[in-house]
Amino acid sequence: MRVTVLGAGYIGSAMACVARRRGHDVRLWGTWLDDAIVDVCERGELHPRLKLSLDRIQILRSGRLAEALAGSELVVHAVNSDGAIPVMTRAAPSLPAVPVLSVTKGLLASPRTGQMERIDVVLAETLGRPLRFVHAGGPAKAMELARGVLTWMQFAGAAEDTGLCAGAMADETLLVGQTEDRTGAELCSALKNAYATGLGLWDGAIGPDAHNARAAAFTQAIVEMRTLVVAAGGRAETVHGPAGVGDLHVTAAAGRNRAFGERVGRGKAARIVAQEMAAAGELTEGYPAIAAAFRFAEERGIGPVPFLRALHEIIWESADVRSVLAGLRWAV
Amino acid sequence: MRVTVLGAGYIGSAMACVARRRGHDVRLWGTWLDDAIVDVCERGELHPRLKLSLDRIQILRSGRLAEALAGSELVVHAVNSDGAIPVMTRAAPSLPAVPVLSVTKGLLASPRTGQMERIDVVLAETLGRPLRFVHAGGPAKAMELARGVLTWMQFAGAAEDTGLCAGAMADETLLVGQTEDRTGAELCSALKNAYATGLGLWDGAIGPDAHNARAAAFTQAIVEMRTLVVAAGGRAETVHGPAGVGDLHVTAAAGRNRAFGERVGRGKAARIVAQEMAAAGELTEGYPAIAAAFRFAEERGIGPVPFLRALHEIIWESADVRSVLAGLRWAV
Repeated sequence: MRVTVLGAGYIGSAMACVARRRGHDVRLWGTWLDDAIVDVCERGELHPRLKLSLDRIQILRSGRLAEALAGSELVVHAVNSDGAIPVMTRAAPSLPAVPVLSVTKGLLASPRTGQMERIDVVLAETLGRPLRFVHAGGPAKAMELARGVLTWMQFAGAAEDTGLCAGAMADETLLVGQTEDRTGAELCSALKNAYATGLGLWDGAIGPDAHNARAAAFTQAIVEMRTLVVAAGGRAETVHGPAGVGDLHVTAAAGRNRAFGERVGRGKAARIVAQEMAAAGELTEGYPAIAAAFRFAEERGIGPVPFLRALHEIIWESADVRSVLAGLRWAV
Repeated sequence: MRVTVLGAGYIGSAMACVARRRGHDVRLWGTWLDDAIVDVCERGELHPRLKLSLDRIQILRSGRLAEALAGSELVVHAVNSDGAIPVMTRAAPSLPAVPVLSVTKGLLASPRTGQMERIDVVLAETLGRPLRFVHAGGPAKAMELARGVLTWMQFAGAAEDTGLCAGAMADETLLVGQTEDRTGAELCSALKNAYATGLGLWDGAIGPDAHNARAAAFTQAIVEMRTLVVAAGGRAETVHGPAGVGDLHVTAAAGRNRAFGERVGRGKAARIVAQEMAAAGELTEGYPAIAAAFRFAEERGIGPVPFLRALHEIIWESADVRSVLAGLRWAV
């Protein structure tokens, strides 16, 4: 099978490794931001982020997008959410009518309504036609995915398309669940970065002996993710599966969003922490994710989401972290 | 209000501190296994495990059980599951008809049927009458509960009784949810020790870079806990709240069950690890919890629970951890 991966960063390259493991003919296309990565890989060196060989994967520079897509039977979309519209707009003329398996997480402003929306909705509006969009949710750190550590993902889309994607990518180490609940799966993926930041706050504000508080916050995050998903037309069961519970677990257990929250929890302004982490080359997806999630809830009048509101106050309205957390009243 | 706590270990003493914080007249009764603890506290020293003062809490030695219970308006049952029948049998003649708020987690063999059962069912059989039993589930490490770190518990029982217990114990730092689903809450509390051990296996078998596998196992644990709870007549929503998701989160994040699993995951026989940990004074509740949970499922023909079955094979049937984990096929 011919598989084209768009985006040569961590997760795109990992998905290319998964496809190669399954014996497919794999092309990995790097965006204009990935040129430096592509240069290194073309010299036969290890992928500079994954530290793995991309041997037997054809790597294409940004100018060769049409060539990368020609004859493809499955497209993996692994560009970050900021790049989704520019990349897919350029890809559209060459894009075969095959499933687009997207590992991209986030919400985007709809050019039509101005409201925060799922990525597949915004792409369909932008391109003027729906894609055969399959969202891949679930806890999948790229390095482990590439190396074949047991991973359980959830593919969400039309049954025919999730079946094709699962058939192409699943193997002994990559378990793939399937659902038609694209709304639930995409929202879970977008929301978990926001809530994972929230779990980090307790580490900073209380210290390591905040197990009860973190577990309470984890539970409340699941409650609010379910509120948001169900109100938006998705299914509670998606929140209780790998895309929700599973992905929040891995995101909250470690990683940059948690670290971001922890530093804010210690009392430093979110804006400063985000600047410092950006300067150190660390993306803090939780920072914009909180704004996007809160806007999503507000625009639709969805609630109650007291934890998300508290996060927004702390991270985006410079409210004092300790007094907001102390005053937090969530539904019990 | 007069509150009597039965059991002067970690969690009983912490519940006594919570009741004292609410201004109640608190009596803390130690079982015959707690005599050494009571001696220390009676000399006015810190509680030897909690390292906190029990000032303004009346502490009674094991021989003074009737006195401890006289005039009590709320009884907190904080004896471990092995002690539940002997303690409540002795307490029964002096026990007022007030709610019994139980923080005890586990399953017991019914003297009537021989099957594994909820503690409140076995106590009612043993005493020949039902208690006003309220199970307290949720992520509540004793030290943090005593110190007033934010904690979210779930009280499960008859609405009148959970209301009385929540009214007596909840405060700004202890949030209390209420449910009539005693089955769900008790099973969650019993099952989480078993599954937390399972999450530890991956750390041992794969190492620290097993985030995806641990998150997959966390998700699968929730799936199987729901299967068991619903089949036993409980509610899925209980599993998705503090008693299930929340308590599994805190138990799996740290603690002895996880450590037990990790050492077994590295390839050492479970029996040996349990012996070593017992010799070091570390209780490994997950060890018997796996046997009890598996027996509970088998006796009722509940399934599929492939992760629990795999745990039982590894921990109780000396199966090779790596080959069992590699062969594990869970429902996706």
